[in-house]
Amino acid sequence: MPLLKSWVASANSADHPFPLNNLPYGVFWTRQKIEDLEWDAPHCGVAIGDMILDITALEGEYFEYGEPVFDVGCWNAFMELGSDVWAEFREKVIKMLEENSPYQTEIEPHLYPIADAQMELPIAVREYTDFYAGRNHAFNVGTMFRGPENALPPNWLHIPIGYNGRASSVVVSGTDVRRPWGQLKSPDHDLPAFLPCRRFDLELEMGAIVGTASNGPITVQEADDNIFGYVLLNDWSARDIQAWEYQPLGPFQAKSTATSISPWIITKPALEPFRTDTPEREFELLDHLKDCGPMLYDIDLAVTLAPEGKDSTTITRTNYKEMYYSAAQQLAHHTTAGTPMNVGDLLGSGTISGATKPERGSLLELSWGGKEPLTLDTGETRTFLEDGDTLTLTGAAKGDGYTIGFGACTGTVLPALKDPYAR
Amino acid sequence: MPLLKSWVASANSADHPFPLNNLPYGVFWTRQKIEDLEWDAPHCGVAIGDMILDITALEGEYFEYGEPVFDVGCWNAFMELGSDVWAEFREKVIKMLEENSPYQTEIEPHLYPIADAQMELPIAVREYTDFYAGRNHAFNVGTMFRGPENALPPNWLHIPIGYNGRASSVVVSGTDVRRPWGQLKSPDHDLPAFLPCRRFDLELEMGAIVGTASNGPITVQEADDNIFGYVLLNDWSARDIQAWEYQPLGPFQAKSTATSISPWIITKPALEPFRTDTPEREFELLDHLKDCGPMLYDIDLAVTLAPEGKDSTTITRTNYKEMYYSAAQQLAHHTTAGTPMNVGDLLGSGTISGATKPERGSLLELSWGGKEPLTLDTGETRTFLEDGDTLTLTGAAKGDGYTIGFGACTGTVLPALKDPYAR
Repeated sequence: MPLLKSWVASANSADHPFPLNNLPYGVFWTRQKIEDLEWDAPHCGVAIGDMILDITALEGEYFEYGEPVFDVGCWNAFMELGSDVWAEFREKVIKMLEENSPYQTEIEPHLYPIADAQMELPIAVREYTDFYAGRNHAFNVGTMFRGPENALPPNWLHIPIGYNGRASSVVVSGTDVRRPWGQLKSPDHDLPAFLPCRRFDLELEMGAIVGTASNGPITVQEADDNIFGYVLLNDWSARDIQAWEYQPLGPFQAKSTATSISPWIITKPALEPFRTDTPEREFELLDHLKDCGPMLYDIDLAVTLAPEGKDSTTITRTNYKEMYYSAAQQLAHHTTAGTPMNVGDLLGSGTISGATKPERGSLLELSWGGKEPLTLDTGETRTFLEDGDTLTLTGAAKGDGYTIGFGACTGTVLPALKDPYAR
Repeated sequence: MPLLKSWVASANSADHPFPLNNLPYGVFWTRQKIEDLEWDAPHCGVAIGDMILDITALEGEYFEYGEPVFDVGCWNAFMELGSDVWAEFREKVIKMLEENSPYQTEIEPHLYPIADAQMELPIAVREYTDFYAGRNHAFNVGTMFRGPENALPPNWLHIPIGYNGRASSVVVSGTDVRRPWGQLKSPDHDLPAFLPCRRFDLELEMGAIVGTASNGPITVQEADDNIFGYVLLNDWSARDIQAWEYQPLGPFQAKSTATSISPWIITKPALEPFRTDTPEREFELLDHLKDCGPMLYDIDLAVTLAPEGKDSTTITRTNYKEMYYSAAQQLAHHTTAGTPMNVGDLLGSGTISGATKPERGSLLELSWGGKEPLTLDTGETRTFLEDGDTLTLTGAAKGDGYTIGFGACTGTVLPALKDPYAR
C-alpha cells in the first residue's frame, strides 16, 4: 500500500507519523477551548498530519450511534460498539480526509493543530496487566540474578508470564513521574529502611488495548480480533523496591508509581501491512497458544534520555518483532482460567530488548545491574534514572513511501518528596 | 454496647446476624420485582433481622444527596460522598428502624424478606488486591515448599506482601465457580499440558473495601479512615496452575477464575466494639507501617464443605485477629510508591489460618499439600475440591447479647468444561 494522499498537506510526507494511512485515535483539549470554557470534557480526535480532527464535534451530524459515544472523554464507548463499527468509522474518516474529499469545506473548521493540544489518556483503563514476554529481556534479567544456565524459568518458553498491574497508575505521555519512596534493604544492612528509590528505571514496552470483551477462554485468533489497537508504554520500575518485595508473589509497589502510555491509539488496520511472525521456538507451544498467523508487527522502537536542560541521547533502539509472544497470545493466555476481559483493559508486552547491548529496553540491562554505567552524548553517565531526566519512547513502522508513527511517550523524573507523609 | 432493639422483631435476638447494631449494606433484587419488571436495576438495601430495607425506594423523600446515589445498582456513589455522610446516613437508618420509631408506618412497605432476595455484588469492584498477611498461612505454605527454617521470606515480617488481582473475576456469594483449565506440569513429565485444574482450593479471607480515594502515600490512620467496611472473601485458587506459573512474577491465572465475596458490607461502626491489636512482632515495623491503635477485629470465622447432595462438614474455624497485618496497614503499604487508590477498590487480607490444624484456612494447608486427606463427616475424604462441592464461609463478632454477622459467602464447584474452546 502506498502513501494515501490527504487534503491536509502536512500528512502527505513519507516521514510524517500521521498520514492518512494511520489515523490514530486520541483524546485532547485545546488551550483555546479550555480558556473559553467551551468544552466540559476533552474531545475524541483523529490525528492527520499536524492536525487533529475533532470527532466529538462531528458526532450527531456525521457520526450517529444512538447514544453519544465521543462526548465522553475517552474511546471506550466507541470500542464497545464492536469491530464492524470500527471498520465503518475508519472508512468514513478516510473519505472525509482524502484528497478531493467533498467533506473538506464542512469539516476543515474542526481541525486543530496538534501543537496546541493537550492530550489525555485515550481510554479509561479498566484493568492493566503487564507481561514478561521478551526473550532477550528475560534472559538478561535472569542471567544477572541466576546466571546464564538458569536465566529463563522453566515455564518461560511455554506460557507468556504476566502479572496484574495497577490500572490507577497508568498516565498519559507528558505526565511527570515522581521518584517513589519504598521499603529497601541494601545487602550490607540486616534490616530494611524506608527511603526514596535509588534504582529507578524505565521499561520499553508496547501496550495492547482490549476493544471487545470476552468471558471465558478465547483462542489466539479471537484474541487478535478483540484487540483494538496499540500504544507505546513505559513501565516505570523501582528496581530496589522490587528486589526486596518480589518474593514470593511478584512485583507490587515497584511497579505501582506510574505506567506511561503514548496518547494515540494506533489501530490494527493501520498496522496491518506490518504484521510479522513470532520467532522460531525451541518448544512447540500447546495448541491453545499456537500462532495462527503473523500477529507481531515490525515496528522500530527507540528511547532517548535527556538530562535536565540538556540534549538527549538515544539509549536504545530495538523492534517490537523481538517479542517471543504476541499480544494476541498474551490475551488468549490471560483468559484460560476464565477471567472476564473488558473493553479498556490494557496489556503491556513486557520489556522489548534486542539481542545486542544497544538494543536493550531498560537501564537495568543497559548498565548490567548498575555495573556498567552508560555514557550519554553529553558526557554524563547513567546507571539508573536521575532526577530531571526526561525519557522519550518513539515507535514507527516504515511502509512503502509512508510511515505509521506512534507519537512520543515521554515523562520526566521529579525528585522524591522530602517527606511523603507531610500534610 | 448492648443489643439495640428494633421494631423489626426478627432483629432482636442475641444470635441473629443482622440486629440494629449491624445494619449491613447490600444490593438486591426481589423475585416479585423482577417478574413485575418494576425495577430496571437492583436496589441498595440495608439488612435488619430477616428483612431488607429498600434504600433506593427511600431516595428523594428520606435521603437526598443532589444526584441519585442509590439508584445505581451499587454503593460506590454513596461511598464517594465521604465519611461524614456515611455517619449521618447510618444515624438516620437507626432512627428509622429502632423500637418506637415514628417512621415505622411509612417505611414498613419498603421491607422485603431476605429469603426472597437475590443478592448482587454490593460494590462495583474497581481494582482488586490480594495480600498474604496471615502468618500461620505463610508459615505453613513456606514450610511445605522450602522447609520450616526458610518458611517465611526475609521481607515477610517487614511488609505486608501482596499482589494485584483481577477485579473482573470478583463475584457475589452464590455464584457457581467453574473448575478452570490451565497449563500444568506434573513432576513426572518433562513438558506441561493444558488440562482441567486438579488441585482447586479455597482461601478463607476477609475483604476490606476502600471508601475514600487517595493519591500518594497515606498513613495507617488515614488508611483506616478510608476503609468503608468489610466482607468475607474466598480467593479460589488453582494450586497446580500456580505451581507452574508463579515464578518469577507471582500468581496470575491460578487466581483469576473467581474470587467470591459475601453480599453484605459490614461497616466499621458495626465492628467498632470488636477492634483488637495485631500480634506481637519479632521486628518492630518501620514508622510508616506501625500500628496506631487496634485495627484488627475479633471476628470468628468458619468454613463448611458440603459434597453434592450431602450434609456439610465444618472444615476450619479461625479468627480474623490471627492476621499479622491489619487492612489499614495493607492499604497504607499499598500507597507507598504513589499509586492512587479509588473508591471501590477491594483488598483481600490473605488466607487466615490459626496455629493449629483445624484452624487452617485452605485445603492446601488442611491436607498438607494433598498428603494428609481430610475426612468429612460424611466419611468421604478430600485433598482438594471436587466437582459439586459447596463451600460456605461465615463470620461473626460476638457482642454483649448480640451478634454482628457477615452473612454467608458460598460457592459451588462446577465441573470443568469438556472443551473450553468449543463455540
